[in-house]
Amino acid sequence: MSLEKIKSHLREYSYLRSLHSLLYWDMETMMPKGAVEDRAKRLSYLQGMLHTHITNEKYKKLLKKFSKEKMKGMEKKLFKELQYDFDLNNKFPLKHVMELSEAQTHATHAWAEARKKNDWKSFLPHLEKLIELKKRETSFFDEKKPYDALIKLHDKEFTSAEISKLFLELRDGLILLRDKVEDDGRFVKVKDPKGVFPIADQKALSEFVARKFGLPEANSRLDISTHPFSINISPQDQRITTRYNEKDLDSLSSTMHEVGHALYEHGLPREWEGTPFQEAVSLSVHESQSRFWENVIGRSKEFSHYILPHMKKHFPKHFKNMDVETLYRYFNKSVPGLIRVESPELYYNLHVIIRFEIEEQIFNHGLKAKDLPEIWNEKYQDYLGVRPQNYAEGILQDSHWAGGAFGYFPTYTLGNLISGSLYQKMKKDLPGFKKDVKKGEFGEILKFLQKNIHSKGRSITTKDIVGNLGVKDYLDYLGEKFK
Amino acid sequence: MSLEKIKSHLREYSYLRSLHSLLYWDMETMMPKGAVEDRAKRLSYLQGMLHTHITNEKYKKLLKKFSKEKMKGMEKKLFKELQYDFDLNNKFPLKHVMELSEAQTHATHAWAEARKKNDWKSFLPHLEKLIELKKRETSFFDEKKPYDALIKLHDKEFTSAEISKLFLELRDGLILLRDKVEDDGRFVKVKDPKGVFPIADQKALSEFVARKFGLPEANSRLDISTHPFSINISPQDQRITTRYNEKDLDSLSSTMHEVGHALYEHGLPREWEGTPFQEAVSLSVHESQSRFWENVIGRSKEFSHYILPHMKKHFPKHFKNMDVETLYRYFNKSVPGLIRVESPELYYNLHVIIRFEIEEQIFNHGLKAKDLPEIWNEKYQDYLGVRPQNYAEGILQDSHWAGGAFGYFPTYTLGNLISGSLYQKMKKDLPGFKKDVKKGEFGEILKFLQKNIHSKGRSITTKDIVGNLGVKDYLDYLGEKFK
Repeated sequence: MSLEKIKSHLREYSYLRSLHSLLYWDMETMMPKGAVEDRAKRLSYLQGMLHTHITNEKYKKLLKKFSKEKMKGMEKKLFKELQYDFDLNNKFPLKHVMELSEAQTHATHAWAEARKKNDWKSFLPHLEKLIELKKRETSFFDEKKPYDALIKLHDKEFTSAEISKLFLELRDGLILLRDKVEDDGRFVKVKDPKGVFPIADQKALSEFVARKFGLPEANSRLDISTHPFSINISPQDQRITTRYNEKDLDSLSSTMHEVGHALYEHGLPREWEGTPFQEAVSLSVHESQSRFWENVIGRSKEFSHYILPHMKKHFPKHFKNMDVETLYRYFNKSVPGLIRVESPELYYNLHVIIRFEIEEQIFNHGLKAKDLPEIWNEKYQDYLGVRPQNYAEGILQDSHWAGGAFGYFPTYTLGNLISGSLYQKMKKDLPGFKKDVKKGEFGEILKFLQKNIHSKGRSITTKDIVGNLGVKDYLDYLGEKFK
Repeated sequence: MSLEKIKSHLREYSYLRSLHSLLYWDMETMMPKGAVEDRAKRLSYLQGMLHTHITNEKYKKLLKKFSKEKMKGMEKKLFKELQYDFDLNNKFPLKHVMELSEAQTHATHAWAEARKKNDWKSFLPHLEKLIELKKRETSFFDEKKPYDALIKLHDKEFTSAEISKLFLELRDGLILLRDKVEDDGRFVKVKDPKGVFPIADQKALSEFVARKFGLPEANSRLDISTHPFSINISPQDQRITTRYNEKDLDSLSSTMHEVGHALYEHGLPREWEGTPFQEAVSLSVHESQSRFWENVIGRSKEFSHYILPHMKKHFPKHFKNMDVETLYRYFNKSVPGLIRVESPELYYNLHVIIRFEIEEQIFNHGLKAKDLPEIWNEKYQDYLGVRPQNYAEGILQDSHWAGGAFGYFPTYTLGNLISGSLYQKMKKDLPGFKKDVKKGEFGEILKFLQKNIHSKGRSITTKDIVGNLGVKDYLDYLGEKFK
């Protein structure tokens, strides 16, 4: 039967993707600095191989044959996704895929160096090159707005117009809430525990939380990289990274975030190996999982209650005299800042909206790379009332553009919205979940996510999970938090 | 021209090999334990891809076309090696290659577990399977003795008969020397510095020596694994591993050994990327490089002189009152032991000869896996006067057989012999080299090796480097050491 042959072809494809993931993970965490050129060539070659494998004649014929066979319900769904992927992949010429890959690798390294040295100029030509290549990419699509093509690559369920609408509503809601929180003051005037948080203890705490949330030690590892990320080397091999700073505890929330991604990947159904059903619904749903664990769980009062003794154990100087309420406020301290990944929940989506608006300007209205820092800084002034004093804390803070990931940022906020709806759903369907968190028991919560999301892969849509996506659930969730 | 096309085909092959090396390195150093099955499948798939790439019709035709073209001198040489490799690779059916790869991965993990738990029985079925597969492999060759096929895979210049002859001569010479050294007693009654050698200091010293010998930080890294090894991820990316034990300083010599391998790989000529000219002459010559740095340099009196202050710095308690002569005797302490990789030079080759004799028995005379521990223990009693008290310090000490690397061990002793001849050559051609070592200057020595060996790749043979290989140079070198 064609399906078995298709599955076997896709299993091989998943092996090739494993190789690619490992090359990438290794480059970001382990590779000696002088090996960038060699690595770029290998990544590009492999990217070409991946592209060829998934667009070749053999696979095309298999799909065609399958389309004429009698399909069961799940198979019909699968075929639709397979055909969608095939048509999508076929839009890209091999040469473009390989060229883009090589440019991404070089740009990512240039970015890491530039960020370290606060050197915008050395990164600019790389960014220009990537924008040029991604513009070329949008021309392979028939979208009304070029930027929509790039969004589609990260979430095929939303257009930029729909996102714009959601973001506007959200922004208004957030600004109302911000004003309340500022007036109230309890979550603003929070004293940070000062002093050094030893990295060994931060790491131990991160590992502890990862295990508690349900990521098995035998199938994962935690490392350090310039920009935290999560990657699926293979179903049995989930890797997350974080970064440590002795002066703060950001590594904890960053780890919880990446653990959320890893739990999703680890829970995808193995019986559909290599097929879309062993893939996430979209990057937005992926992000809903990371934000769920990081915020809905990790910044809840119940989690503060559970984790406080562990904080006291690892950082006795800082937390000796702290009570649950104070820890909760510390975890939810709401002061606008410059760095997205360190942003309080209340302000986080404004960071995303800034990037979304800039990307839209670049691809739909011809905004030039060289003009980005100025616009960036102005928008930060406008939306968050803060202004970067250097490139590293401004335009150079994120690695996404260096990796060619334009259209990615909106999924962060879509993910937040989904996580808000999941919270409301969980309150109904799993009413004991807050008590569980208080006791440090996360098994039922993970089961809930596995049953409703992880085990379904791409056989479902966002709508199947949370209905029509809106901003109310999320704003209600936030409102509850700051009440 | 066909040569350019051949080169391009082989460049791609080298990219695929990079992927394989990274999968392997990662598995041995980083991979979470629960990912073995996934990894085995990916390694096997990639091994199949490598085999297909290097034996396919396209490449066959290219070679044929090239064979009819007018070739320059170097090209003629290259063609000979290409044809040799092609014929060799074509002996192996794809199915066998993939089956062997999967068996190797599982066996290597079973071995690591078995060694930890001193559990021979759990490893035995894996070993039986591998012997069966390697026996099948010998049937693809037309060698008079099956074992010769396996030796050929590691060094095509020597037969088992030639090796036997060299090893017998060597053994007699070593036994004479051993009796002298024992009578003399200076290198036997050496007190080991007792106490804990902190691992952080061992690591720092290892890194320091690696840099001093000329392995650039930007192109290498040093990690930990169960069994120390060196691997070429790409020309710009050389990785070595060692293992640390707080009770001894074996990590130092083990690192110098692996650095020797890495310097060779790093020095292979890039202009011949992917071709045999960018490969080592043989594993024996490879081993000559590691043994050269580990022993000829690292265990010389001049190196003791140079490194003593650094030893004092890192391990003040142990070395505070030590003088150069005592350090030299400590580095060359000659007492027979059970573990090959920890063996003093004087006894090292006896360990190899034991394995060579056992392998010869397995493949030429039907010795069974289940009988190996007994024969192993008897031979250790006979040759070294020591008897393993458990499997971990006996038959389970080395990973080679688990990796299917039968025929590999003899190259260690061939490498020693070559390193002895290199020592004699260097005394003539680079008379100042001992003075350099004393000053901690290794640049001229590395240049000498680069010029004569590294930069030539497989365009030369062992004979080109040291003439007809014999045991005299090496025995003279050892004799000098213990005089």
